[in-house]
Amino acid sequence: MDRMLSEERTAFLERDFYQGFIKTCGFKLDLLERGRAKSSLEVTKAHSQQDDFVHAGVMATMADHTAGYAAFSVVPEDSRILTLEFKINFLRPAVGDRLICSAKVVKEGKNILVADSEVYSQSDGAEKLAAKALVTLMAVPATALRSK
Amino acid sequence: MDRMLSEERTAFLERDFYQGFIKTCGFKLDLLERGRAKSSLEVTKAHSQQDDFVHAGVMATMADHTAGYAAFSVVPEDSRILTLEFKINFLRPAVGDRLICSAKVVKEGKNILVADSEVYSQSDGAEKLAAKALVTLMAVPATALRSK
Amino acid sequence: MDRMLSEERTAFLERDFYQGFIKTCGFKLDLLERGRAKSSLEVTKAHSQQDDFVHAGVMATMADHTAGYAAFSVVPEDSRILTLEFKINFLRPAVGDRLICSAKVVKEGKNILVADSEVYSQSDGAEKLAAKALVTLMAVPATALRSK
Amino acid sequence: MDRMLSEERTAFLERDFYQGFIKTCGFKLDLLERGRAKSSLEVTKAHSQQDDFVHAGVMATMADHTAGYAAFSVVPEDSRILTLEFKINFLRPAVGDRLICSAKVVKEGKNILVADSEVYSQSDGAEKLAAKALVTLMAVPATALRSK
Repeated sequence: MDRMLSEERTAFLERDFYQGFIKTCGFKLDLLERGRAKSSLEVTKAHSQQDDFVHAGVMATMADHTAGYAAFSVVPEDSRILTLEFKINFLRPAVGDRLICSAKVVKEGKNILVADSEVYSQSDGAEKLAAKALVTLMAVPATALRSK
Repeated sequence: MDRMLSEERTAFLERDFYQGFIKTCGFKLDLLERGRAKSSLEVTKAHSQQDDFVHAGVMATMADHTAGYAAFSVVPEDSRILTLEFKINFLRPAVGDRLICSAKVVKEGKNILVADSEVYSQSDGAEKLAAKALVTLMAVPATALRSK
Repeated sequence: MDRMLSEERTAFLERDFYQGFIKTCGFKLDLLERGRAKSSLEVTKAHSQQDDFVHAGVMATMADHTAGYAAFSVVPEDSRILTLEFKINFLRPAVGDRLICSAKVVKEGKNILVADSEVYSQSDGAEKLAAKALVTLMAVPATALRSK
Repeated sequence: MDRMLSEERTAFLERDFYQGFIKTCGFKLDLLERGRAKSSLEVTKAHSQQDDFVHAGVMATMADHTAGYAAFSVVPEDSRILTLEFKINFLRPAVGDRLICSAKVVKEGKNILVADSEVYSQSDGAEKLAAKALVTLMAVPATALRSK
């Protein structure tokens, strides 16, 4: 039971997900469980790079943010999450109508969490692994951030 | 002399820089020399994350894209640049009105190039190193991309 | 059938695995299949760092080398493998008698391959994920290396 | 003055540097200042990989360990340093008689430190940048490690 997110916590994190740059990009949160999150994006011209593939920065943002909310789902309610660093490999140029991201926490430390995050591109029903990331995150008391 | 970019090449790369996601984000190319590029961003709410810092994805996109054009400046004119992977460390929460990014090519291989990219946040005239990235890029013949 | 390694190729790669620094470290190749490799290490004082954990460099070497032979198993026989870069997260201080590494190729490009590599520490029968890496490798014609 | 390391602290860190895997590899600490460290290695067959270049794991270990002692030089004396993660790019196959590594702390947080680390290969007097790393480290109270 304590492995489950409360309805209140889930509702809070779902609202918290959508702010600023995430709204600018248009990512959607599709699933949130303890230690896991999934998101998606309807790809448009607004996400492209100079050769009409999805920009690496779109996939990096998606991998990071989805990993962030996977991490949020396991920390105390008065904690916030900051990304310390991430690394992402782009495995093939991403084309198609839709991106899907799946992130899971692979190490749950008290302060430091590590997640991996995969981005798939969907095109004509087929799904291909487009990018793979490893993300290091830090849990920080909300009070510590407010004082900055 | 052969270390310099022609006016035509510079003009082409300056136009090429601004497309899709880069326009969505609002990055500006401020300098382009052989092996170096600088960019900037006027920060707004559209770039923020859930705690009102600049989103990690904004800095990651900026570090990647600026590194990409530093790489573009050293490859043959019929080559395009794809990012193979990057890693970025976020050194402090980025606040302030403006981001500046400076990228330089540290290894110029025939096919594989490596660049480092630094993102600074400006606030009240002070400038702080906010993020540091290492980016691996691949030069690809333009014809190879068109066939995809 | 073409997904299988020939006996000759397997024997060649098994011999090729053990050279120089790998013998210095004492890694053992335990499995080699197309796109996958596993290795192990009996941990001694010779592998420790200043706090008696296994040195990060031991795990990094193991993750890299095992990923390298996973990549070797999928490229043409006249190709050699070079590591372009890797990133590794250390998830907990590694203690115990034995390390196990499992690597698999996640993207098989003609020139560029990406593998992930996990290092587990064994202690009193229990196995824990100690490190997780993403490795970018390049297939290079053997003739290109000989001329260097 | 408070930017300087005491003689006692320097002597302690110099001794602390040489243990286990570092003695196995043969790295030498050449310089230690507040926030900076340099090391070197006389390259032998014991450091090679399958194509007679220096093994990526040797350079990774050197980059990590040297960054670690750059970090040690800035934390309180009752703190120990653990590597959370690193990323390293190998810029050219390393040949030659000697490696030199130079690491500096680029962000000095209370708990989290980031360093960059460069490895140069020396051959016939010439020095070439062979690898470049970004390393994330954590300062941990010595008492916390002893209880593990």
